[in-house]
Parts: sequence; structure tokens; C-alpha cells
Amino acid sequence: MRVCLKVSYDGTDYHGWQYQENQDTVEGELRLAIKKLTGEYVETIGASRTDSGVHSKGNVVVFDTHSTIPPDRFIYALNDILPKDVRILESKQVSDNFNPRFDAHNKTYEYHIDNSDIQLPTNRLYAYHYSGKLDIEKMNDAADYICGTHDFTSFSSVHTQVKSFVRTVNSCEVSKKGDEIIISINGNGFLYNMVRIIAGTLLDVGINKTSPEKIKDILEQKNRTAAGRTLPANGLILKEIKY
Amino acid sequence: MRVCLKVSYDGTDYHGWQYQENQDTVEGELRLAIKKLTGEYVETIGASRTDSGVHSKGNVVVFDTHSTIPPDRFIYALNDILPKDVRILESKQVSDNFNPRFDAHNKTYEYHIDNSDIQLPTNRLYAYHYSGKLDIEKMNDAADYICGTHDFTSFSSVHTQVKSFVRTVNSCEVSKKGDEIIISINGNGFLYNMVRIIAGTLLDVGINKTSPEKIKDILEQKNRTAAGRTLPANGLILKEIKY
Repeated sequence: MRVCLKVSYDGTDYHGWQYQENQDTVEGELRLAIKKLTGEYVETIGASRTDSGVHSKGNVVVFDTHSTIPPDRFIYALNDILPKDVRILESKQVSDNFNPRFDAHNKTYEYHIDNSDIQLPTNRLYAYHYSGKLDIEKMNDAADYICGTHDFTSFSSVHTQVKSFVRTVNSCEVSKKGDEIIISINGNGFLYNMVRIIAGTLLDVGINKTSPEKIKDILEQKNRTAAGRTLPANGLILKEIKY
Repeated sequence: MRVCLKVSYDGTDYHGWQYQENQDTVEGELRLAIKKLTGEYVETIGASRTDSGVHSKGNVVVFDTHSTIPPDRFIYALNDILPKDVRILESKQVSDNFNPRFDAHNKTYEYHIDNSDIQLPTNRLYAYHYSGKLDIEKMNDAADYICGTHDFTSFSSVHTQVKSFVRTVNSCEVSKKGDEIIISINGNGFLYNMVRIIAGTLLDVGINKTSPEKIKDILEQKNRTAAGRTLPANGLILKEIKY
């Protein structure tokens, strides 16, 4: 049977999601736990290959197993084995041809900015600290230009190898609650570093270095150097994947 | 001059506040940073000697220095040197006889319980996870019995050496917001492990193992074994000290 897991993790101590020999990766920990539980070396297929340091509340992964463990029990059995910074939130059986990467309908990421004067140490692993004044209204105006179907070459790391840079962003919103600013973005797919570059560009708008209307130009230039910088991984969290 | 600092820290990687040779302590890091900044080996006096793993948003510490750095600049100069899990939030000059420990008027601690089914990894360092059903109303009824001036022997670790076990708790409240339960307690002083034992006893009330009225008996028994267990350090945070 094919088992599907929803996986949450603190990415701080991992070299990202994707399995690599001799590196601590979330996928590596998961395969090791499945091996301990079932005795099987399995191939895992993850929906999002999140980067080093990026967090998740809802990555999705599947694997095929001959185990007789009921599919909804993997959640408890694996959590007993996994390190505390990786947790299975859901487990269920899916059809044998379900592919969490290619069958994903849309994904939601959040980028967290801590806008306090001095960052509390208990926030440091989960939010990028920026103490300057930010114009949230302008950031939201800029976010509106991000929405829609565009060629996002300007918002993709230069070493990316993909067939097409066209993606659809369904929504992009900036909210502020106290000192916490959240950029929430939902789309059908994301290029390498795309959310972190969008966050960096919206930050430039927030400090009046870039105007909201400029986003249109940046998209049209199809050139990475036109957009803002890539904000650090610690502020990024994969929130949800919908099928 | 005597400089007073308000100090926030993530206690996860420290053997508590108090300086110990060959151990990572918050006070040790602070003395090292002051040495690097001023060239002076200083004695520091902290208000609360928080335990290994306990966090702080507002511990208070003083030290005497011949430095010509303006007192309000220590905040920036020390934050440049200190590790990211220790932050100075305020710095100012105080009178030479000000003692943050003995002059404290009252202190507020919070104990955080994560009541979700499965704890998100990003919460694991800052909240104790308990997934069972908890009766918040009964926990609050029990908290009312904690308030007032009592002999707190039953709520103090057995190896404590103090002259008197009498303390005054000004307020003790249990609140719930989503899956987050916060026990907030303000008092004129706290015995060793007192807040963590109160939290453990209120948890027993929440699961109907102990009745709220039983708190009165527990106080009267003046015996550590009468109260609940000591909850883990990671859920505890020193919130504020008032003078």
C-alpha cells in the first residue's frame, strides 16, 4: 500500500528536506524511522523540497510499504521514533498512483518578519528580524502586483534549471499583528527561492526603496538582479498543500 | 557607575542563569561580553537565578563599571557581542546601592502548556506538551487557592535551604487561546521550582486527579509529596520584574 504523511518540522538543524548521503535532512530522518519501524528501505516522494533552515507545518510525503501496520497508526509509531523536531501530523492510505508533488493543487507559504526593536531570543529561529519602520499598506499594494500568472524569472535564483518560469500566484497578503508581520502567499507552484525573493522585494517596498508599481517592471525585466534580495531561510514556513 | 540591564534569553542551551566555571550560563556569557566591551572583569548581580532550560523576557542584572560608555548605549554594544540567544532589552544607570534581587517588588512568571494533539516542532522548546483534555475552569478555581500569603513548603523542591517558606502570590490565572494554555503567576518571591510545581498541581486539577479545594489541604500539609510533579523547565518563562 501507499502511505501518505503530513509532516511538520523545525528546519533549523537540517540541510533541507531532500535526502543526501552524510547530511542531516528531514527526508533522511523519515526514511531511517520507516526502516526502524517496518524493516524496509523505502523510497519517499515529498511534495516540497524545502531548503536548508526552512520550516514546515504541512509538507506531504508518500512511500510504498508491505507493512501490516494500519495506515492511520503510522502517525504514532513514527512519532515515537523520529526526533522531536520532526512530527507526523496525519497518516492515511492513498491510491498507488498518487504523487504528492505532481498532484498538488496549490501551496501556501508564510514569510515571518519580526519588526520589534530588539528581537526576543525565543523568536530568533522562526522570524527574520527587521527593526526599521515598514509601510504595510504599500507592501500590500505591491503584493497585489505579484498575484496572477506571470513569468517569475526575476524572482527565481539564477542557478535554477526549470522548463518554464511561469507560475500562478493566487493570493499574496501582508498582515501585521503587534510586531509580527506575515507575508502569506498561495500559488500553484513556486520557483527556487521565489517566496524569499518576493519577501525581500516587498521589504524594499516597505522601506520606500521600491514603489509598489515597480513590481510590474521587475516582472517584465525577467532578470534576477531587478528584484530585491533573498531573505534568510529561518523566516519561511511551508504552511499547507492542497490537493 | 552602576549599570542596570533587562535581559531576555532562550534558556534551551544554558545551565541556567547563575555563573558556574566550565558551564554555559547566561550570567557567564554576559560577564564575558562585558569583559570584551570594557576590559573589566565585573561581578554581576541578577534578580532571578533561573534554572537550566528556563527562558526570560525580563530578568534584571546590575554591574559596576568605570567605563565611559553612556549607560543607555550598553544595550547596543553588548548585543553586538552576545550570542543571539541572549539579548539586552534595556540599559540604564541606577543608584550604587540598587540591588535587583532584594529590591524587587514583584515578579511575573508564565508557564506555557501546548494542549494540541501533536506538538508542532516549532513549539517544542517553549511549551510543555500535554494532549489530554483539561478543565480550565477547575484549574482557575485551584489557582484562586494558590493566591494569598501561605507557607509554600509543599510547592518547593525538598533540597531548598531558605529561612522561610512563606511567600505571597498576588495573582494566579489560567488562560486558553486555541491550543495554548498559559498559567500566569505574580508574587513577591518564589521558592525553588515553585512555579513548575504549581503548574504540575494545576495540571492534576485539570485532569480531575485533584479537586480545586484540595489545594488548601496541600498547602496545610507542608510536604512536597502532597503536591503534583515538577513540570519541565522548557515551559517556564520569567516575564517581568517590577520595582
